[in-house]
Amino acid sequence: MSSRFKNIALMGNFEDLQVLESIRVLAGHLPAKGARMLVDASAAGRDLPDTVDRVPAESLAEQANLIIAVGGDGAMLSAARLAARIGIPMLGINRGRLGFLADVSPKNPLEPLDRLLADDFDSEKRMLLRAEIVTDSGTTDCGLALNDVVVKRQETGRMLEFESYVDGTYVNTHGGDGFIIATPTGSTAYALSCGGPIVAPNLDAIVLAPICPHTLSDRPIVIPAASITEVKLAQEHTDSAEVCCDGEVAGRISGGDRLRVAAAEQRVELIHPRGYDYYEILRSKLHWGRGHRNSRADD
Amino acid sequence: MSSRFKNIALMGNFEDLQVLESIRVLAGHLPAKGARMLVDASAAGRDLPDTVDRVPAESLAEQANLIIAVGGDGAMLSAARLAARIGIPMLGINRGRLGFLADVSPKNPLEPLDRLLADDFDSEKRMLLRAEIVTDSGTTDCGLALNDVVVKRQETGRMLEFESYVDGTYVNTHGGDGFIIATPTGSTAYALSCGGPIVAPNLDAIVLAPICPHTLSDRPIVIPAASITEVKLAQEHTDSAEVCCDGEVAGRISGGDRLRVAAAEQRVELIHPRGYDYYEILRSKLHWGRGHRNSRADD
Amino acid sequence: MSSRFKNIALMGNFEDLQVLESIRVLAGHLPAKGARMLVDASAAGRDLPDTVDRVPAESLAEQANLIIAVGGDGAMLSAARLAARIGIPMLGINRGRLGFLADVSPKNPLEPLDRLLADDFDSEKRMLLRAEIVTDSGTTDCGLALNDVVVKRQETGRMLEFESYVDGTYVNTHGGDGFIIATPTGSTAYALSCGGPIVAPNLDAIVLAPICPHTLSDRPIVIPAASITEVKLAQEHTDSAEVCCDGEVAGRISGGDRLRVAAAEQRVELIHPRGYDYYEILRSKLHWGRGHRNSRADD
Amino acid sequence: MSSRFKNIALMGNFEDLQVLESIRVLAGHLPAKGARMLVDASAAGRDLPDTVDRVPAESLAEQANLIIAVGGDGAMLSAARLAARIGIPMLGINRGRLGFLADVSPKNPLEPLDRLLADDFDSEKRMLLRAEIVTDSGTTDCGLALNDVVVKRQETGRMLEFESYVDGTYVNTHGGDGFIIATPTGSTAYALSCGGPIVAPNLDAIVLAPICPHTLSDRPIVIPAASITEVKLAQEHTDSAEVCCDGEVAGRISGGDRLRVAAAEQRVELIHPRGYDYYEILRSKLHWGRGHRNSRADD
Repeated sequence: MSSRFKNIALMGNFEDLQVLESIRVLAGHLPAKGARMLVDASAAGRDLPDTVDRVPAESLAEQANLIIAVGGDGAMLSAARLAARIGIPMLGINRGRLGFLADVSPKNPLEPLDRLLADDFDSEKRMLLRAEIVTDSGTTDCGLALNDVVVKRQETGRMLEFESYVDGTYVNTHGGDGFIIATPTGSTAYALSCGGPIVAPNLDAIVLAPICPHTLSDRPIVIPAASITEVKLAQEHTDSAEVCCDGEVAGRISGGDRLRVAAAEQRVELIHPRGYDYYEILRSKLHWGRGHRNSRADD
Repeated sequence: MSSRFKNIALMGNFEDLQVLESIRVLAGHLPAKGARMLVDASAAGRDLPDTVDRVPAESLAEQANLIIAVGGDGAMLSAARLAARIGIPMLGINRGRLGFLADVSPKNPLEPLDRLLADDFDSEKRMLLRAEIVTDSGTTDCGLALNDVVVKRQETGRMLEFESYVDGTYVNTHGGDGFIIATPTGSTAYALSCGGPIVAPNLDAIVLAPICPHTLSDRPIVIPAASITEVKLAQEHTDSAEVCCDGEVAGRISGGDRLRVAAAEQRVELIHPRGYDYYEILRSKLHWGRGHRNSRADD
Repeated sequence: MSSRFKNIALMGNFEDLQVLESIRVLAGHLPAKGARMLVDASAAGRDLPDTVDRVPAESLAEQANLIIAVGGDGAMLSAARLAARIGIPMLGINRGRLGFLADVSPKNPLEPLDRLLADDFDSEKRMLLRAEIVTDSGTTDCGLALNDVVVKRQETGRMLEFESYVDGTYVNTHGGDGFIIATPTGSTAYALSCGGPIVAPNLDAIVLAPICPHTLSDRPIVIPAASITEVKLAQEHTDSAEVCCDGEVAGRISGGDRLRVAAAEQRVELIHPRGYDYYEILRSKLHWGRGHRNSRADD
Repeated sequence: MSSRFKNIALMGNFEDLQVLESIRVLAGHLPAKGARMLVDASAAGRDLPDTVDRVPAESLAEQANLIIAVGGDGAMLSAARLAARIGIPMLGINRGRLGFLADVSPKNPLEPLDRLLADDFDSEKRMLLRAEIVTDSGTTDCGLALNDVVVKRQETGRMLEFESYVDGTYVNTHGGDGFIIATPTGSTAYALSCGGPIVAPNLDAIVLAPICPHTLSDRPIVIPAASITEVKLAQEHTDSAEVCCDGEVAGRISGGDRLRVAAAEQRVELIHPRGYDYYEILRSKLHWGRGHRNSRADD
């Protein structure tokens, strides 16, 4: 076999029966095609098929030349961050319905996988963000995000006041529930619920979206991917806020700390079946083309 | 037959083959149940079945004790305004997909109609608006609207500036594409596309929604149904604007004219099959309960 | 003195120097006009003037026939809830800028107060909400809210899934940051930041506004004030959510608990200087009438 | 004088007294500094000062090495398009309040102009769009737009249905009032009123914003500036729509015509006084940093 992808790391929630079912289908097929299947031994439950090799996390990172993630968006995001860190591509098999990142259906995964092993696929690179917290005592890395970095106050009922800066220039003092710094990939996630735009994945840009802003004209801003965004609390003495990367808690700012977010050096290569069409996925996920309200006189 | 509904007026676009097909199904069924079917002779094409009586518009208004409208929302709105004017109830049979006003399916209309003739149905009253244009030389009635009264500038590319008043109190000077005064029924129509809320049909309220307002904080306002809304051009000498009722041109304001909109005296009684559930229709029309964006880490 | 208002309860944050300054102005003036000034002894700091009587909370509730609240919206909301509970009116003196509830300026409070004592004022009644949590073991009262009752998940980064019901009818299953049930007064508070409409204070209505909803068509709904709203978690086994009244934590739901919110029996009477104009306050607070974006060709 | 700017073309509405007043101030100052002032003879009224040279439009295009536009956004847009066409920079003097494009105040224009003539200024290049209509019989150029190209139906009350394509890929079938294709400059104009994001002027991107879309999930999309957008009517036989560039009618599409919009080859160089700060202008124009609604408990 001449495929690029001889060692395939599987990722997903191996406690989930639907995920296991998909894994079994892969395990019954890929080895015969010459591909070795690996899982992180610490994540593998006892129900994984025997044809799957359990290896230490470091070995997986060294040996795998493709990650296949099975499951929902959470599994995809986690796999994509790992794929970006170790510099290999990723393919997503979704758990049920079509996903923005998982575009191989579990109903019929084998044909796309055969084509993949025959080096017949589309691929694209997606941007990630790196978040850092800068305090008086130094800088802490908060890790990577494929969707978004979010700053939020936790105390229910109170407003967070914070300042935003782009490339060192003061932008605004915001009051509200928090702030989202999103990639094009993340533009269809939390930021979309906060009034942000959809950003084409081939645009090198970052979305800054205030969450439930006090000021109605405090609208989302789209800036170049090369720009550095910083967020700082306005009430240094009384407030603190949580920082999340792709929905997972990654740190906390208080006092004069600054959250600094920039495009990561690493990108992730997403593998798609041939004919991948971003707008088709948008139309499906957003129910486009089907009337959402009653009509005017001409309907 | 003891039904309230002995004389049923049929309304719709009789050039539309789907509408005609539904009419034929009704015409093959209702007369045997003792109901007479009437159409406005001036609207009837030659393809209507013989069991349908063609009568002058005035006779239809005098004799009918129910209107059945067949078609899309345009046909429903037109039929509902007539029903309100002549004080009889209305039932809608939609042309294909479920409508906000037409909740009998053309696939299986006969069972609901039999129940209707057996006086077994739900009904509710819906508010309409009456629009008037007040000029130096007097007041012109612009007619009724079940959905909305809309003021709009026609010149593309230019902004309309206008003032709004509620019960004689100045509210705001707006810049934008225009202004919508909507009933609860119309809250899910054009006003919803302009950021207006959904208003429960049993709330006596009117929605005032600016269309693409220049000022981002110029948000929709919900006022009591008993309030009178007036709209007046801010640039009396250079502007003019069109007034539409339910999407049909009903007049024009210029100079110091005032558009005055209030709840109409007449309400329309909508007939529904038993078990009518407004929120079920909302969920269906607005694709609720199905994810519209990709998710965060927990999905 | 023939004024209704012989015993005036003062409320506010008595640690705040600006508030104290306003209190001193009142204390130098009102007693000479025959009005007694009371404060809750447990809230009074040592810096209050001697002409202010420190009384137990119960005595204050029994004796006061007017509450004057000094400070920001937090002080107003707290005072308004107390005023509603003990059935006396409330007047607000704001700490600096004009407020929705505090329309006497601290710059010149004496003239409006003299008119007030001369029974020369406007007043209006505002609706409050009562929140209750219904569990298997009974119903817990969460208190009153003049602005809003909010349900929110606290775990950052995760989505709350919950069901809403109006008058026992299922409305929707929502995914997002939470849900706001707001009065007309609260329609210009948190709900406005979540895309809700402005509701005229003389409309008996409640706004239901999802916070950052996952589904873009999950829009705010306005329902009659007489309707009962219930909220229940969709993931009974894994989620829990906090309930806040006017921004203060009032309870928590988990499992099959239901949050039930309805208009309170009590209303609060707000006292205004003559000529109170709700829309003037809106225009001022929302910066209406001043362009918020660049213009099109005609500007 | 060593300035780049020896021949300065003046543009604006010379019927406007405020504009004339500004011109007079310039005319009393610039010639003494060695700069010649030109106006298009066909646009010049009789009230222009004698020190201003009236020349034919072609001479102005050949000789001028700077355009100074005086007035509102309409004058700026028109001057910027000419500046882009003839390849010279532009400076804006606004008519009163600060503008997005006119950042020299008429109150004190001389100091910034002296610095300009001393080659002491900031400048930046802004993208323009070129619109073309492609029909069976050929392609018609609709000209340049610095803000936006807009497609709109003119018939009030009816919905326009149209398809959008990006780089030849089908995106969506939209129902609504129309469609905006906007530059970063135009992102704070009409597109902002339609829910579009603010796009930083240094991001090479285009905003596609549906106007009052029927489908609530039909959100604005941001695409690379290198992408070509096409719009085509969905109802080829019954509809037609107007095309506007920067708010001025530039053409019409009907039948199977396609509107094609791409970044223009030409960019316009905007001249700013030293210290130009885009976000400062945003804060001023959008009233940021001042509360727009009443607050929660902590205020």
